[in-house]
Amino acid sequence: MTVEALIFDVFGTCVDWRTGIVREVAAATARKGLEIDSVAFADAWRDLYQPAMQEIRSGRRAYTDLDILHRENLDATLDNFGIAGQFSDDERAALNHAWEKLPPWPDAVPGLIRLKANRIIAPCSNGSVALLTRLARYGALPWDCILGAGIARAYKPDPRAYLAACEALRLAPAHVMMVAAHNGDLAAARDCGLKTAFVARPLEHGTGQVTDLKATSHWDIVAADFPALSAHLDLRLHD
Amino acid sequence: MTVEALIFDVFGTCVDWRTGIVREVAAATARKGLEIDSVAFADAWRDLYQPAMQEIRSGRRAYTDLDILHRENLDATLDNFGIAGQFSDDERAALNHAWEKLPPWPDAVPGLIRLKANRIIAPCSNGSVALLTRLARYGALPWDCILGAGIARAYKPDPRAYLAACEALRLAPAHVMMVAAHNGDLAAARDCGLKTAFVARPLEHGTGQVTDLKATSHWDIVAADFPALSAHLDLRLHD
Repeated sequence: MTVEALIFDVFGTCVDWRTGIVREVAAATARKGLEIDSVAFADAWRDLYQPAMQEIRSGRRAYTDLDILHRENLDATLDNFGIAGQFSDDERAALNHAWEKLPPWPDAVPGLIRLKANRIIAPCSNGSVALLTRLARYGALPWDCILGAGIARAYKPDPRAYLAACEALRLAPAHVMMVAAHNGDLAAARDCGLKTAFVARPLEHGTGQVTDLKATSHWDIVAADFPALSAHLDLRLHD
Repeated sequence: MTVEALIFDVFGTCVDWRTGIVREVAAATARKGLEIDSVAFADAWRDLYQPAMQEIRSGRRAYTDLDILHRENLDATLDNFGIAGQFSDDERAALNHAWEKLPPWPDAVPGLIRLKANRIIAPCSNGSVALLTRLARYGALPWDCILGAGIARAYKPDPRAYLAACEALRLAPAHVMMVAAHNGDLAAARDCGLKTAFVARPLEHGTGQVTDLKATSHWDIVAADFPALSAHLDLRLHD
């Protein structure tokens, strides 16, 4: 198995989006003296993520960058929490940048640095190039390039998202490994011919998480974290 | 002047393509015991670069990645030098990777590291994502993301190449600065509304170079090298 590039899901797999969004929502509402359950707000905001992309996957809506979907979902969530009148357009735009300020999981950056030594590493996320670039700068994620929905103009698990990443790298899918904390993401990548690695992130949705707690299929690699993934790959490299 | 991102021409501006190509051609021909003027070969190979892209700019040919154009131009150059029969398909493919192994100018990497501290940095080159990603790994060019013809599917100086870079970064052209050693590249970028910085590379074409020895227009910044460009920008930042 020659893996020449690793492409990564980002939200949940590389970064702890929930902690980051809760923090930014808590700060923005505290500045206004609002008493809002910022965890519930973050979850409600994120709950609109898949339905918004589904409009595009289904063809009912033309491809629209995730930044715009996040903003529309923020507007709806502010409305649902009854605080829409409290936030100006500029304040909403600022809060929407919360998605560019998410903390990496503690193992992510050291793991990526190790993985990058021998292979190309890139995100294959539903985030836009603009969002992922700023998120990488914020968290020091050492990507070689930025791939994903922004260049494919299609949202995972649409096959075009994975295949456009392979094509941009000029690699056959069999030489590219998708790394994700989500079994569904890996299933779609495998259907496109990519190799797969599962890294569980059991706290992505908080302590009550019930989904993706473990691998539900025979992925090529199942690793505890990114450094363990690197060790797995190095072992195979020397087989 | 708020410059939030710097986008760079790469071949000639960031890397010394001629030295790199001469070295790889010399090595490949020496292995076969061929007596070839590797400098003349490198120049002849590069001479086919603009005409090949012109076919695409003019609309006579669909967008084709630079890797493929480089390979076609290599085949033609081997033929012109009367050594086409000496190189197998695999050997030609290997030699074509010379474009991914070009030495950065000595000031480029330290300059980019300084520039990256306060602004997004990315290539806006006619190279493909695959080529620029591997070239960045080879030379440790610390890009935040890879932009240019590969994502625009249009070759500079086509306005779409510059505007697609700005759009991918979600920035207005006035907040993006194009950095190049080529006056023509900057003229096209300025026409799109971008800021411009000229850094002369008087040895790009060797000691006999006659073009682009100095700025031929009033670019926003004219700097001796990348660290000097960083100093110029920091000065303006604190104005």
